[in-house]
Amino acid sequence: MFKYERKINYYETDKMGVVHHSNYIRFLEEARCSWLESIDLSMELIEKMGFTIPTLEVNCKYKIHITSGDKIIINLEISEFNGVRMTVKYTIVNKENDSIVAEAYTKHCFTDKNLKPVNLKKHHPEFSDKFQNL
Amino acid sequence: MFKYERKINYYETDKMGVVHHSNYIRFLEEARCSWLESIDLSMELIEKMGFTIPTLEVNCKYKIHITSGDKIIINLEISEFNGVRMTVKYTIVNKENDSIVAEAYTKHCFTDKNLKPVNLKKHHPEFSDKFQNL
Amino acid sequence: MFKYERKINYYETDKMGVVHHSNYIRFLEEARCSWLESIDLSMELIEKMGFTIPTLEVNCKYKIHITSGDKIIINLEISEFNGVRMTVKYTIVNKENDSIVAEAYTKHCFTDKNLKPVNLKKHHPEFSDKFQNL
Amino acid sequence: MFKYERKINYYETDKMGVVHHSNYIRFLEEARCSWLESIDLSMELIEKMGFTIPTLEVNCKYKIHITSGDKIIINLEISEFNGVRMTVKYTIVNKENDSIVAEAYTKHCFTDKNLKPVNLKKHHPEFSDKFQNL
Repeated sequence: MFKYERKINYYETDKMGVVHHSNYIRFLEEARCSWLESIDLSMELIEKMGFTIPTLEVNCKYKIHITSGDKIIINLEISEFNGVRMTVKYTIVNKENDSIVAEAYTKHCFTDKNLKPVNLKKHHPEFSDKFQNL
Repeated sequence: MFKYERKINYYETDKMGVVHHSNYIRFLEEARCSWLESIDLSMELIEKMGFTIPTLEVNCKYKIHITSGDKIIINLEISEFNGVRMTVKYTIVNKENDSIVAEAYTKHCFTDKNLKPVNLKKHHPEFSDKFQNL
Repeated sequence: MFKYERKINYYETDKMGVVHHSNYIRFLEEARCSWLESIDLSMELIEKMGFTIPTLEVNCKYKIHITSGDKIIINLEISEFNGVRMTVKYTIVNKENDSIVAEAYTKHCFTDKNLKPVNLKKHHPEFSDKFQNL
Repeated sequence: MFKYERKINYYETDKMGVVHHSNYIRFLEEARCSWLESIDLSMELIEKMGFTIPTLEVNCKYKIHITSGDKIIINLEISEFNGVRMTVKYTIVNKENDSIVAEAYTKHCFTDKNLKPVNLKKHHPEFSDKFQNL
């Protein structure tokens, strides 16, 4: 289970006084990129190698509102990986009181830089192994 | 079925060369607000009346990439409404060729301005009726 | 003087209840892209031709707050163009009452797709002439 | 001179492959909020006390492109404060090589929660003193 911490910015709130729901999708990406970096597979390296990881689906269930100044911890785990597709699960908690702020998953495939799908196991077994081991 | 049309802005793309997936969630909100306005229930009026419509869940499945300059049409329909909760379904199509760009749903509740849930049927039957009739 | 009209979205507000100041910079880009399109030089065409128009400087003076549901008109004019650099000036007004919401300018250069500066007059005289005539 | 460090996120880039220029304005706000917090005047505390700090003007000169994965340091200083208005200056540098990425300033006033200007020296001398001492 990978953990990513970040603080909510003022510009991420809306006139309801809380974080706009679209921004959680961005927080998930931050957590995902931070996790990739932690296994020496930063998005920058991945793109330098000529491929990328588009998002096929996002799902986020919002439980408790958060606002600017709040600190969140995103717990991330790979729930599925078969070389062609990957599902990532997230639990966002409020750092102050451990209450669950949101639960989410995102689904991804692997593509070349023209966004054509590739089989990671065939084309990049060294990367595929890293994902497999998680 | 309500239709909302909009053009993709340059700042909505990312370095993959296509619209960042988080922005679709914002497009859905635009479509939802435009639909509310079309039934004389703009978010501004709703908030003036002392309540608001937070998002409880979003789900979006991305089918085809789009990029700046593209025009999309969002087809929106209420798939569930019971006075306490509402589910909205969306199909985003590329205006040029009618191909399906994304399919999504969002779930909502109704709250007062302190974000405490209210039963719309009890407290705002005049609004509730409008939703019911859709 | 080119005019661009748009409506403020809910997600463009912040917890102050008004449009977050960073979003105006995006509205300016929308107006600029819309203007380019009106002279048959859409950003998409420009990038297909192998060059782009980065921003070198932005300045925006905020006069009156606006919020979701408000309609603005952005009046745009080219105040300087010499083939290498271009300055664009903007006056944003509230459509309802013509009051000035913000005044801004942006400065730009022209580059190839590797973001190396080019002299538009030399390399793309057909584009340069279009800008010159404004 | 206050220093604020942050990393560039993937979703902050655009199809030019670099950070979209509007996002720098958000980075400036992050630095400003972090600085306020460092002097025990977080925006959350300030708003709890019943006032806020709108932005009157932004100016940003972009020198060198940055992209996702880059780390920046924002050096911030108060260049003017008179109890009614405040000017903040920023130099953004690339952490890796100290090169100047952008130079900026923002101007602000102090208002109550209805966005009516207040004189901080008169109404909140305890806050005003904190700013004055910088």
